[in-house]
Amino acid sequence: MRATTIHGPKDVRVETVDDAAIEQPHDVVVRVTHACICGSDLWPYRGFTERAPGQRIGHEFLGVVADVGSAVTTVRSGDHVIAPFTWSDGQCRHCRNGLHTSCPHGGFWGSPGSDGGQGEAVRVPYANATLVPVPADAVRANAPGLLALSDVMSTGHHAAVSAGVLEGGTVAVVGDGAVGLCAVLAAHRLGAERIIALGRHPDRTTIATRFGATDVVPERGDEAVERVRELTGGHLADAVIEAVGTEQSMRTAIDIADDGATVGWVGVPHGNPAGADLGQMFARNIGLRGGVAPARAYIPELLDDVLTGRIDPSPVFDLTISLADTPSGYAAMDERRSIKTLIEV
Amino acid sequence: MRATTIHGPKDVRVETVDDAAIEQPHDVVVRVTHACICGSDLWPYRGFTERAPGQRIGHEFLGVVADVGSAVTTVRSGDHVIAPFTWSDGQCRHCRNGLHTSCPHGGFWGSPGSDGGQGEAVRVPYANATLVPVPADAVRANAPGLLALSDVMSTGHHAAVSAGVLEGGTVAVVGDGAVGLCAVLAAHRLGAERIIALGRHPDRTTIATRFGATDVVPERGDEAVERVRELTGGHLADAVIEAVGTEQSMRTAIDIADDGATVGWVGVPHGNPAGADLGQMFARNIGLRGGVAPARAYIPELLDDVLTGRIDPSPVFDLTISLADTPSGYAAMDERRSIKTLIEV
Repeated sequence: MRATTIHGPKDVRVETVDDAAIEQPHDVVVRVTHACICGSDLWPYRGFTERAPGQRIGHEFLGVVADVGSAVTTVRSGDHVIAPFTWSDGQCRHCRNGLHTSCPHGGFWGSPGSDGGQGEAVRVPYANATLVPVPADAVRANAPGLLALSDVMSTGHHAAVSAGVLEGGTVAVVGDGAVGLCAVLAAHRLGAERIIALGRHPDRTTIATRFGATDVVPERGDEAVERVRELTGGHLADAVIEAVGTEQSMRTAIDIADDGATVGWVGVPHGNPAGADLGQMFARNIGLRGGVAPARAYIPELLDDVLTGRIDPSPVFDLTISLADTPSGYAAMDERRSIKTLIEV
Repeated sequence: MRATTIHGPKDVRVETVDDAAIEQPHDVVVRVTHACICGSDLWPYRGFTERAPGQRIGHEFLGVVADVGSAVTTVRSGDHVIAPFTWSDGQCRHCRNGLHTSCPHGGFWGSPGSDGGQGEAVRVPYANATLVPVPADAVRANAPGLLALSDVMSTGHHAAVSAGVLEGGTVAVVGDGAVGLCAVLAAHRLGAERIIALGRHPDRTTIATRFGATDVVPERGDEAVERVRELTGGHLADAVIEAVGTEQSMRTAIDIADDGATVGWVGVPHGNPAGADLGQMFARNIGLRGGVAPARAYIPELLDDVLTGRIDPSPVFDLTISLADTPSGYAAMDERRSIKTLIEV
């Protein structure tokens, strides 16, 4: 089969690899129909995080069950399924508590020894617990909207939940990448009355507004803080979402949080941790919650809303390519020509 | 009047200062009957944080109302009162939300221009909102237990609330100072089933056990983490309280938190912020909440429990001195000869 591999900075290839195959009774092989490129895939692409040369890549996919192990009971061949960006056993106390990303039997697609999502097929461990079936006609109607649940929409939702977004509250979202945009949508879905999107790319902030942002702040750093202060009559934000992961973005997130508020963070941390200014957090009782999103916990409720049309995260995809063109998709995202690139496999 | 002043490292004096006097209609003058020395007073005493030479010091006191401004309605001359360690107006949105420490009209006793708690009298701004009256016979019966509400017990409670301590849960408390001990008591009061106290001073851990600690871990660093792992069957703690404020204590607090747990922190942060290991917090979804405790918000409910004898934080005081001997009290706490020193004024 064909799958995407990464060999070094800016060196992503689509190569022939071993066919995905059942190894354990609880495995399923999913034939991937739709995959995509994540902002976090750009970190190894840019050489900021290391990968073994030839390692698989990609962790978001939608597909059709092609083969099932003997212990699999929840899906059958031919079923359409969403895969969250990690697999998990569904049995451990973390899974039972809804923190599937901490499952001791879990893992990330594309980690050494596992298939990546950007390929023709994926072996899915613990398929009973990991995969979420979706109606075939829903895939035909809105595959991108469903694919977003695999990571980006679930992660945006995790940020909003972690930040403690409340009905009627004021939320500020730092970052206008696909996750930040989905966080706006999630905050809107949770009933936030005012949503301030911090971002400077008009193609992105247009989507933020479409997703429910009431204000857009293109400024950065201290100027952004002043602008949020003005917009809120000095009150700052009741809840803040950090969806970038740099020192500066964390600093801004804390600066624009009202005293007693929580920063819900989902931007994979890179750079100097000094952005989390403990002195200020302590003096103003600002909390920090979040991390790797347990997408599997959130998919069922978010799926219902995508199926009924209550939310539609699909506008975050602004470029569609074929699997063979995956390297060009990386380049497009790296050069900010695409917010998020969908791969039709 | 006589009051304690700080002139430099290890240079605390009891001097004659201007008498406390009404300046604003909402002021009250409290004649201090009981004050005490806080672990945080040791930071300027040790020269780690600066003070203006001659600045007042002390922020915990119990006393009797001696004089009232024209706008004061909630207390009368002769009333016994507890002062939380900050004053606040009680009217602003932060006070209404229970975060009195963020009141824009608030301040800390002993900050420049204000009286300190370790003196014969204190001018209390916004007395209607700041002071909490207590029955005279309760003061006669257990002044130390009431005085603890001024800061140390309220701060321990804030840590427990911030950490999300739940009935039946496992809580780990890093630090066996007076705040850590009160956090044990607070966690016990909130119904934690298992309370692991990390501390190596037998005089202190004895009190921890008396306050409800089920286990004591004298180890530090990685050994402490291993010990907590063993004690919890690998599950670590559902909630962690950080009551020290150093890089090492924060690192330990995060290490012993179960995935998805929250560290409730009340140790004034000192030293390198790298103790808050963002990479680990992100990977394991560990939250951080807390900061300066809004004691005023907590005093009423905690007071009820002290009055009925349901809790008694008074054992944290193990040395009682007169106001004139305050410098020797600092030395005793600095040299760990006293956990917390009470000053009878």
